[in-house]
Amino acid sequence: MGAAGYPTALGASSTDAITLLGHDLAADVMGKVGFGELAYWLATQRRPTAGQVRVFEAVLAALADHGFTPTAIVTRLTYLSAPDSVQGALAAGLLGGGSRFLGVTEDTGIFLHEVLDAHEGPLPARDEEWDALALATVAERRASGRFVPGLGHHVHKRGDPRTPRLMEIAREEGVLGPHLELFAAIGRVHPDVLGRTLPLNGAGVCGAALADLGLPLRLLRGFALLARTAGLIGQLAEELRHPVANDVFLSVDLNNRPVEPDPYPGGAG
Amino acid sequence: MGAAGYPTALGASSTDAITLLGHDLAADVMGKVGFGELAYWLATQRRPTAGQVRVFEAVLAALADHGFTPTAIVTRLTYLSAPDSVQGALAAGLLGGGSRFLGVTEDTGIFLHEVLDAHEGPLPARDEEWDALALATVAERRASGRFVPGLGHHVHKRGDPRTPRLMEIAREEGVLGPHLELFAAIGRVHPDVLGRTLPLNGAGVCGAALADLGLPLRLLRGFALLARTAGLIGQLAEELRHPVANDVFLSVDLNNRPVEPDPYPGGAG
Amino acid sequence: MGAAGYPTALGASSTDAITLLGHDLAADVMGKVGFGELAYWLATQRRPTAGQVRVFEAVLAALADHGFTPTAIVTRLTYLSAPDSVQGALAAGLLGGGSRFLGVTEDTGIFLHEVLDAHEGPLPARDEEWDALALATVAERRASGRFVPGLGHHVHKRGDPRTPRLMEIAREEGVLGPHLELFAAIGRVHPDVLGRTLPLNGAGVCGAALADLGLPLRLLRGFALLARTAGLIGQLAEELRHPVANDVFLSVDLNNRPVEPDPYPGGAG
Amino acid sequence: MGAAGYPTALGASSTDAITLLGHDLAADVMGKVGFGELAYWLATQRRPTAGQVRVFEAVLAALADHGFTPTAIVTRLTYLSAPDSVQGALAAGLLGGGSRFLGVTEDTGIFLHEVLDAHEGPLPARDEEWDALALATVAERRASGRFVPGLGHHVHKRGDPRTPRLMEIAREEGVLGPHLELFAAIGRVHPDVLGRTLPLNGAGVCGAALADLGLPLRLLRGFALLARTAGLIGQLAEELRHPVANDVFLSVDLNNRPVEPDPYPGGAG
Repeated sequence: MGAAGYPTALGASSTDAITLLGHDLAADVMGKVGFGELAYWLATQRRPTAGQVRVFEAVLAALADHGFTPTAIVTRLTYLSAPDSVQGALAAGLLGGGSRFLGVTEDTGIFLHEVLDAHEGPLPARDEEWDALALATVAERRASGRFVPGLGHHVHKRGDPRTPRLMEIAREEGVLGPHLELFAAIGRVHPDVLGRTLPLNGAGVCGAALADLGLPLRLLRGFALLARTAGLIGQLAEELRHPVANDVFLSVDLNNRPVEPDPYPGGAG
Repeated sequence: MGAAGYPTALGASSTDAITLLGHDLAADVMGKVGFGELAYWLATQRRPTAGQVRVFEAVLAALADHGFTPTAIVTRLTYLSAPDSVQGALAAGLLGGGSRFLGVTEDTGIFLHEVLDAHEGPLPARDEEWDALALATVAERRASGRFVPGLGHHVHKRGDPRTPRLMEIAREEGVLGPHLELFAAIGRVHPDVLGRTLPLNGAGVCGAALADLGLPLRLLRGFALLARTAGLIGQLAEELRHPVANDVFLSVDLNNRPVEPDPYPGGAG
Repeated sequence: MGAAGYPTALGASSTDAITLLGHDLAADVMGKVGFGELAYWLATQRRPTAGQVRVFEAVLAALADHGFTPTAIVTRLTYLSAPDSVQGALAAGLLGGGSRFLGVTEDTGIFLHEVLDAHEGPLPARDEEWDALALATVAERRASGRFVPGLGHHVHKRGDPRTPRLMEIAREEGVLGPHLELFAAIGRVHPDVLGRTLPLNGAGVCGAALADLGLPLRLLRGFALLARTAGLIGQLAEELRHPVANDVFLSVDLNNRPVEPDPYPGGAG
Repeated sequence: MGAAGYPTALGASSTDAITLLGHDLAADVMGKVGFGELAYWLATQRRPTAGQVRVFEAVLAALADHGFTPTAIVTRLTYLSAPDSVQGALAAGLLGGGSRFLGVTEDTGIFLHEVLDAHEGPLPARDEEWDALALATVAERRASGRFVPGLGHHVHKRGDPRTPRLMEIAREEGVLGPHLELFAAIGRVHPDVLGRTLPLNGAGVCGAALADLGLPLRLLRGFALLARTAGLIGQLAEELRHPVANDVFLSVDLNNRPVEPDPYPGGAG
């Protein structure tokens, strides 16, 4: 620590007062600031507009729960094994929020941002201009053998219903910005390059929307995790009343098939 | 798994549709349901009223961030050490949400519920009746040498500003129920038994409010963790722009004082 | 921090030297101290004898891996979902090491210790005396409606092969102390009280042995977790070569059965 | 699951028997297989030689504890905050085992492996040949503006004592293979390219040794985490007897310096 101490604009308290983001917590935050709004505010230290909050909460709703995902199964199994620690069950589930599942949100937001950041001159203003940028972008990804983040879905092959809906909400609120514009354009033009039509997936559109909202790009995954925390509490609540974790465990354990060890190729020894 | 499969009322999807809690996610949830409302709904499978949501979100605001708590320091240090894993930094912070810190919320809610549950006859209707129940409750705790959960605070010795504010909000919304009534009565009568005046703390009143809202008692800690997830994202966002974790680490490491091992008393060997 | 800094007898380093437990790490620890021995030493700051190490490592072997337990499934599923974070997959698995599964080791060690601690006069010296103490202990547990920790196993109903083996090793090494003596006596006498014969389980005998070795009682669960860390790495290594996690996930997800929400009983609102 | 069930060669049990890696756990593993040996065996499904075990355990000793690292501080703070969950405190500490700290071990092992893998023709046999390969390797890294993993240390600037010691042990045991050879050669030749002499660090040499031992490259970080689990238990044991976590927490919290919010650059809204 320097002589100046550890600076923070978040929670602080004295004997008689508690402040959060420079405001009186009891008088000016509790009862006046919704939870989505507060989460946004905490992440940016900038109070969002009502429109920004609506889009942000739509993203959180889109990502909160997707049924029996690995993260949901993990939370239920961990609670089965260690019912003394709700925090452990939730933390275990969140640890599945990595590159493969929740990562799409982050990857898409960062990808779009990098394209926009590298773009020289003013950003496109009309759809045709966005389409041209998108076309060049998809072509370049293809040429370098890389996927376009946010494009494709293993279930919603004919279109992910979250995508047009989130764009609609963003448009209604006047916060449809360049990341969503570019993402939409990618959705229009990619068949010309790839030779087939893929859906713009929900995780991707959420990443684009979060980037448009001006949330920290390196923490986009964090918002997916926040949404999922609410979902995992829902999973635990359901598990308490209609348990399935023990059946899941037994379905694996009772179907184990002992095999001979398969020695890993040896080292120098 | 039985022949009937694994039942769930949470997220489900088919090729063309995604539902959550039995509703069409894109059409009926996104853009229409706030995040606090959704978290409540997921946990109870019962859609809350606007008043319930306001109290619930006030609780989440009260618990979201308390500055440089151990959980906040842990999240920042973990991110310093493993910046590749936002999920790991958040999960590590949440793991501090146990019996000592966030546990007060859960302990208070459960304690109040047990008193109410053990109460024979109709619940009190007037303040004097609540006071009588509270007096007996505090006296019994004292006689058995146990603390009263939610009573006392190491900083806000003259009163925790969150407590009257949350009661006020609950009263405004008509959801001030028996847990808050009993908690308030404990605040009024405990000096008669304990011989000194202690504040009803914010973590405790949150537990009482969550119990009044009908949220699952065994998961009360989970809501504190949900609130804290938003706070920890805020901590990470601030760490990215105004880092302190490395200074914290060095302040400990550079002040280490090597001492001789202190052998633990031996076993039978 | 006080003026005196943060004391530690564990790892320390200067520009030219690294010490661990007061010894030169490179010269006196690496190549000379086995891993089980080191773990014991770190936990007690007391170098164990060869006999103590052998018993300790036998305990770790007994607890390292039990096949497709919830913790193993959790580690595999988390790795499936977040392959970028090996630490997250291992941590998630360890979080299942709570009261229900790995907790038996800790519960048994603490239970035996409390009985011995409460025993007045010198400890028993002969089997008959141990049997008398065990009889009183089991009878008291039964009278108060509580289980005897370490007694019973859902699979090894006719006896857990780890139990006699660990006792044999402890006896060979001369470190069979009062916790194991009492545990063995419980095995002999409990049918007289309970009316049926239950096996002394492996998790329990491990707790008794760890207590006899003089390891910190409040951390007994930690040694089970250390053993399990090795097991979970084995699970991940096998998953890399012969993956099952995606099949486990699909077996749950494809068998989900959407049901109507089941509203939780409401609160005051 | 296919009709064939979930294959595993790890732990399995029936009513009367428990096997691990195809061996009878009680008769053939407990009391006969050390913990380091077992961890190696579990990870490779190939029983190591005594020499391989000695090198492996030397690596684990080198990585077990480095004093008040972020991971150690995190484990202590988490235990302070949630003393009910030893598993949570250990898991939180392990979550710091990411790219920055423990990652060096993995990065070095993988880097060396990739160089060897890309090498055409037979591997070098004499020091001069290794030096030539090392020279080309370091030059190429420099030309592409990348660091050489395992080279450099912020404290042990004149040499990390673990490095020559681990090479010596590997040589004594006849398991000094191509990864260590190449790493040693890098230590000899890099000044010619970089213009200054940097130490081969301990984390790096451990990665080289683990790669030579034939352990799974994608799990090298896991072995550092296994070592660290033992270290973190040591940290918790010391914390129980000589606590510092609360002082660390207060040293941060009491030195917090409230500042005004610093709004993040806005989005499109």
